[in-house]
Amino acid sequence: MTLTETLDTLKYNSDGLIPAIAQQFDTHEVLMMAWMNRASIEETLETGRVCYWSRSRNRFWRKGESSGQMQALKEFRIDCDADTILLLVDQTGPACHTGRRSCFYNKVEGDQVIIDREVLIDPKTLYA
Amino acid sequence: MTLTETLDTLKYNSDGLIPAIAQQFDTHEVLMMAWMNRASIEETLETGRVCYWSRSRNRFWRKGESSGQMQALKEFRIDCDADTILLLVDQTGPACHTGRRSCFYNKVEGDQVIIDREVLIDPKTLYA
Repeated sequence: MTLTETLDTLKYNSDGLIPAIAQQFDTHEVLMMAWMNRASIEETLETGRVCYWSRSRNRFWRKGESSGQMQALKEFRIDCDADTILLLVDQTGPACHTGRRSCFYNKVEGDQVIIDREVLIDPKTLYA
Repeated sequence: MTLTETLDTLKYNSDGLIPAIAQQFDTHEVLMMAWMNRASIEETLETGRVCYWSRSRNRFWRKGESSGQMQALKEFRIDCDADTILLLVDQTGPACHTGRRSCFYNKVEGDQVIIDREVLIDPKTLYA
C-alpha cells in the first residue's frame, strides 16, 4: 500500500488524533505516549524530527522545540487496526518534562506506587 | 502514594478508559496498545493476567481467553501525566489477532508501507 493511502485509512479519533508511542530505537525503552494528527504525521515523515499534536496547547508540538530534547525518527510503524502508531526514535536526553528519560517512572509495587527512575536534568534547567 | 489513590487519580477519558501499552518484559518489543477501565486494571493487578476493556465488544477482554495467547503481568507502570499505562508482560505466542508476535508489523519505507513481521500462527488456528 502507498504511504498516502495508508495515512488516509488511519483511524483518527473524533478530534482527528491518533496515539503514538515513542520507543528508543536501540535500547527499546518506551519513552512516552502522545498524540498526532495527519499534519503532524506528514511533518514528522518529511523532516525526520518527531512532531506531535499538543492536546493541552491545541497546536503542533515539535518535540524538543523548547527543551532541546528532540526525537530523531528512525522507524515509523502502524498497528494491525491502523489506530496506533509506534515511533522508533533516537531521543536526545530526557523524553519526560520531569527531566527523566522515560515518562513511565511510576511503578506499582504491592499496594504502593513508587518512582524508580532518576531525574537526569532539572526541569528548571530544561525549560529555562 | 498508595495504589488506590493512584487508581483514583488516573485520567480516564470520557468513556472511562485509559490507553495501555503492552511490552514484552525481556526482549522489550512493543506488542500492542489497547484500553483499560478501572475494573480491568483492578482485575489485572489482582490476577496477574492482563485484562483490557474491548471498545468494539464493550466488555472485558481477558487477553488470550479465546486465542489462548495470554499476557502474564510482570510490571505495571504509569506515566507522568497519569493518562497512559505501560504493561510489562510475558506474552504467550502472538499478541496480534493476525497471528503475528506484535501488532506493529506495518513499516513506512519511503512512499510505501510494507509488512516486515511474519505470521507465527494462522489466525484460523488461533480462533478455531
